Amino acid sequence: MLLDHNAQGVFAIAVTPFTPGGAVDTASVDRVTDFYLSCGVSGLTILGMMGEAPKLDAAEALAISRQVVHRANVPVVVGVSAPGFAGMRSLARGVMDAGAAGVMIAPPSSLRTDDQIVNYFAQAVAAIGADIPFVLQDYPLVLAVVMTPKVIRQIVMDNPSCVMLKHEDWPGLEKISALRNFQRDGSMRPLSILCGNGGLFLDFEMERGADGAMTGYAFPDMLVDVVKLARAGDRAAAHDLFDAHLPLIRYEQQQGIGLAVRKYVLQKRGAIAHDAQRAPSSTLSAGARAEIDYLLSRLARHDPRAKL
Amino acid sequence: MLLDHNAQGVFAIAVTPFTPGGAVDTASVDRVTDFYLSCGVSGLTILGMMGEAPKLDAAEALAISRQVVHRANVPVVVGVSAPGFAGMRSLARGVMDAGAAGVMIAPPSSLRTDDQIVNYFAQAVAAIGADIPFVLQDYPLVLAVVMTPKVIRQIVMDNPSCVMLKHEDWPGLEKISALRNFQRDGSMRPLSILCGNGGLFLDFEMERGADGAMTGYAFPDMLVDVVKLARAGDRAAAHDLFDAHLPLIRYEQQQGIGLAVRKYVLQKRGAIAHDAQRAPSSTLSAGARAEIDYLLSRLARHDPRAKL
Amino acid sequence: MLLDHNAQGVFAIAVTPFTPGGAVDTASVDRVTDFYLSCGVSGLTILGMMGEAPKLDAAEALAISRQVVHRANVPVVVGVSAPGFAGMRSLARGVMDAGAAGVMIAPPSSLRTDDQIVNYFAQAVAAIGADIPFVLQDYPLVLAVVMTPKVIRQIVMDNPSCVMLKHEDWPGLEKISALRNFQRDGSMRPLSILCGNGGLFLDFEMERGADGAMTGYAFPDMLVDVVKLARAGDRAAAHDLFDAHLPLIRYEQQQGIGLAVRKYVLQKRGAIAHDAQRAPSSTLSAGARAEIDYLLSRLARHDPRAKL
Amino acid sequence: MLLDHNAQGVFAIAVTPFTPGGAVDTASVDRVTDFYLSCGVSGLTILGMMGEAPKLDAAEALAISRQVVHRANVPVVVGVSAPGFAGMRSLARGVMDAGAAGVMIAPPSSLRTDDQIVNYFAQAVAAIGADIPFVLQDYPLVLAVVMTPKVIRQIVMDNPSCVMLKHEDWPGLEKISALRNFQRDGSMRPLSILCGNGGLFLDFEMERGADGAMTGYAFPDMLVDVVKLARAGDRAAAHDLFDAHLPLIRYEQQQGIGLAVRKYVLQKRGAIAHDAQRAPSSTLSAGARAEIDYLLSRLARHDPRAKL
Repeated sequence: MLLDHNAQGVFAIAVTPFTPGGAVDTASVDRVTDFYLSCGVSGLTILGMMGEAPKLDAAEALAISRQVVHRANVPVVVGVSAPGFAGMRSLARGVMDAGAAGVMIAPPSSLRTDDQIVNYFAQAVAAIGADIPFVLQDYPLVLAVVMTPKVIRQIVMDNPSCVMLKHEDWPGLEKISALRNFQRDGSMRPLSILCGNGGLFLDFEMERGADGAMTGYAFPDMLVDVVKLARAGDRAAAHDLFDAHLPLIRYEQQQGIGLAVRKYVLQKRGAIAHDAQRAPSSTLSAGARAEIDYLLSRLARHDPRAKL
Repeated sequence: MLLDHNAQGVFAIAVTPFTPGGAVDTASVDRVTDFYLSCGVSGLTILGMMGEAPKLDAAEALAISRQVVHRANVPVVVGVSAPGFAGMRSLARGVMDAGAAGVMIAPPSSLRTDDQIVNYFAQAVAAIGADIPFVLQDYPLVLAVVMTPKVIRQIVMDNPSCVMLKHEDWPGLEKISALRNFQRDGSMRPLSILCGNGGLFLDFEMERGADGAMTGYAFPDMLVDVVKLARAGDRAAAHDLFDAHLPLIRYEQQQGIGLAVRKYVLQKRGAIAHDAQRAPSSTLSAGARAEIDYLLSRLARHDPRAKL
Repeated sequence: MLLDHNAQGVFAIAVTPFTPGGAVDTASVDRVTDFYLSCGVSGLTILGMMGEAPKLDAAEALAISRQVVHRANVPVVVGVSAPGFAGMRSLARGVMDAGAAGVMIAPPSSLRTDDQIVNYFAQAVAAIGADIPFVLQDYPLVLAVVMTPKVIRQIVMDNPSCVMLKHEDWPGLEKISALRNFQRDGSMRPLSILCGNGGLFLDFEMERGADGAMTGYAFPDMLVDVVKLARAGDRAAAHDLFDAHLPLIRYEQQQGIGLAVRKYVLQKRGAIAHDAQRAPSSTLSAGARAEIDYLLSRLARHDPRAKL
Repeated sequence: MLLDHNAQGVFAIAVTPFTPGGAVDTASVDRVTDFYLSCGVSGLTILGMMGEAPKLDAAEALAISRQVVHRANVPVVVGVSAPGFAGMRSLARGVMDAGAAGVMIAPPSSLRTDDQIVNYFAQAVAAIGADIPFVLQDYPLVLAVVMTPKVIRQIVMDNPSCVMLKHEDWPGLEKISALRNFQRDGSMRPLSILCGNGGLFLDFEMERGADGAMTGYAFPDMLVDVVKLARAGDRAAAHDLFDAHLPLIRYEQQQGIGLAVRKYVLQKRGAIAHDAQRAPSSTLSAGARAEIDYLLSRLARHDPRAKL
């Protein structure tokens, strides 16, 4: 089941569960996989930035990939961004052998010019093999690499294995429109566009032509519902549900502690046994936990899933 | 009326109105000043990043400062960040002579170490004069300069003329708590903390001990109300009002077009005659304008001020 | 006498002389201008990064420009890079009225994509006027903006007033070759290329097709000689002279203290009365001064101009 | 044979030899190791930035480390910088088990504040174990992390396993003096300081108190001689030899092609069979190769080792 440009819906960015002692919590790997599936996700993305991938060694990364792929009945995308192509290739070939549907690649922060970016992805494809479908991650806020729609089109047209864009440019609504216009004018082949950025603009991203979301917000079931409502054209209902969650989505956006917020909520929802991160980790103060609890209690008035 | 550490409430970051031809729209300078005053702001901040300050020449900057100071019966803070201290000094002395209450200084992006940051503000104070109260702007997302609470304390303790922090670190809730703890343990003298970041975290910033907001959201009257409710301890009401505005606050956060959104709404509210920016400017697509209109219509269900 | 693409030889990047008290040393402005002229330079560039331009206010910048233009019988280029186009226009129009031959513009560090860079220079030309010849400064090491040869060609072809490249990419030898190939294949009109980077690669830059140097090394007379020898095809002599100076050129390359080294040597050569910088300034330790003296004594064995 | 603070002399930064097809050239690994030893180096540093480490997968990195450690009768330092601590730990434990003398750690580019830097090295030591001696790499030009002398002292004093500084700040002469002053005033324990930056300032770095060089210049035998002459107090001879090499040292400094220059010269010297880099690689144009040949021919007049 290889990833292709028809992918849509929600691909949850999965957390990697750890025990308080720092070991991979393999029981919770199954549990959180089941949780995501129960939320109705169309796919899973593991070992992304939010998956604490750099804290895993190569053997652990492969083991977790195998476990999730084996458990999930949906396509699994594995983040393989690496400082060099050797490590990228090893992991990519390994996870595809284990049954992954595709991989995700982010450009390194050192890239500046349009040509450098285009060349990088050509080299990455040469390294991992053109038979592996890949997701192009466009995340300038964190990666400091800015890709114009033209550059994305170039990468898509140069590399048939580029089947999806993880869109998290900010602001990025016009970029979605520009890419869809490229498809309409025939200058770019079809591309799946799933949006990240913690879901902060999902309401309008869907209206601009996105195919869904690929992000790690702790209520993937809400994301699934918003995507469905948007696709069904039920605009007011989509915004109503989205707006109810927005205070928490916004709170989770805080860089540095976003993952801690996410794991805290996932633990409260029973999806993982511990909210521990492997060191180096960020932790929530008592004040922050109380703020999240307050946000959940307010959210629960609109969405019973937040009654925790 | 010099700025001091007792400042609180909302200091609106004022836009600079232009005509479609690119001239300063002096009639609208008065109009928007009156608008802010009618919103109940405690002060005004002009020539900030959102004030298109770098697009003004020195004479224009001084003229606008004089006009606003003359019109407003509240303290006016003027942004004087500059690539060199000569320009900073000229503008700072000029606007203080014109009756400004204080100036705001952002650190240049080249600063890296703690000592470099501390030294920069010592030099800035030496340049403009220790008699001018100044606001320290802490905005790592845009400025790429990261100041720890300890560094801020050092700047405050080294420079008696540092009376206010424009807080827009992100995430920054714990930073407010840390600074207030410094005051409580006696290691830092009192400091006014007004929060920026477009107001995106104002609900919790107030609860952490902020004195108010210094930001440019197009509904400063809402900011005034949220600050009042928070200070009065009416937590639920503060969050209810804030949450109703959050979809639009979030939309305005988009870097690059945030100012265009802001001017578009301010024009709809009658605060300025044109939503034009001086070149180089960002513009809103028809789609974006329709999205804002939709957000306003949804907001109007909760806040009649959004019926435009 | 407007700058055009036929410019060649050495354009010295002039220091701005200050008194120990921080005032502009107007007597030394004349003295250092005469010094540069006596070195045989073809032109002068003032108010560049090394000219402490950001430490001057607008009136000082204009006054110095007038003084130098009036004194010099060679073309004078004035740096007008600014955070906004209003300040850039004011200074550019002012110095051209005063008789400058052209202006120099560096891209702001925020630019990333090819299109952003190309657009920036289109906007800059619109701001200052297409009648003012300008030098494109390409200095990625400091500016963090990377321009490919294709982007430079685009800027040159889009803007007839772009007549010169200040080349200080690093490494940049292949870039000179690429640009000269563009001229040969007819895809780019002729462009003067003068090289910066403190002269560190001048020996080979001349051989790759540069027209000369635009840099501030404290022995512009050596730069003049190397350019002449290279143009005359006297390769060994050019390298011999260059290599004799290389230990000092290299020493002057140290960012942060480079200007202090330069002013120290210029003062020893009698070109300026004081080696003072306006605050904030870098200073040389006793050890550093002794190192420079030692380098000069070693250099004097090969070049009598270094006997100081 | 663990690395300690008494280390001195030259630690060559070793290249990793590849075949034109991209495989590790294991025969050349031995050959280049023997070459470095024949140059009189005191130690070797492998898998640094110049060692194309990110292009190796984990198994290759370990295999090369074993081969070099087995072959060399001098201490071998292995670069273990990694995006996460899991990978860093795996490689560090692996190479120490294989007999390495210590490891080298560079800070990730995301670090900004003094505290972040200090904390990072505390976490790194916790991850790899306090029993592994490590070299602190201080390379702001490439890493964008600026460590003041005070921060380095803090790291040294916090972590007994920090035994050496790879000094490549730029400019960095005053930093060496500052650190040696810390030792003299008793506030910092002894620390080995070996200098990088391609050797560009080695002449003066030795005079400021450095213990030697850790860099990859293609004439490590010259570095060994300069260090010896400097330690013997033969100042003029040290500078004479250094200056003869400076035109080539300078040429090798060009970021992006520096490694290609280095491998080209090493191949000419017979140290490696091929000058190939594993993809993605930089290549030398015919013009660049001719320039290097010319520099070698000029150098050969002063140093017979350059007759190639």
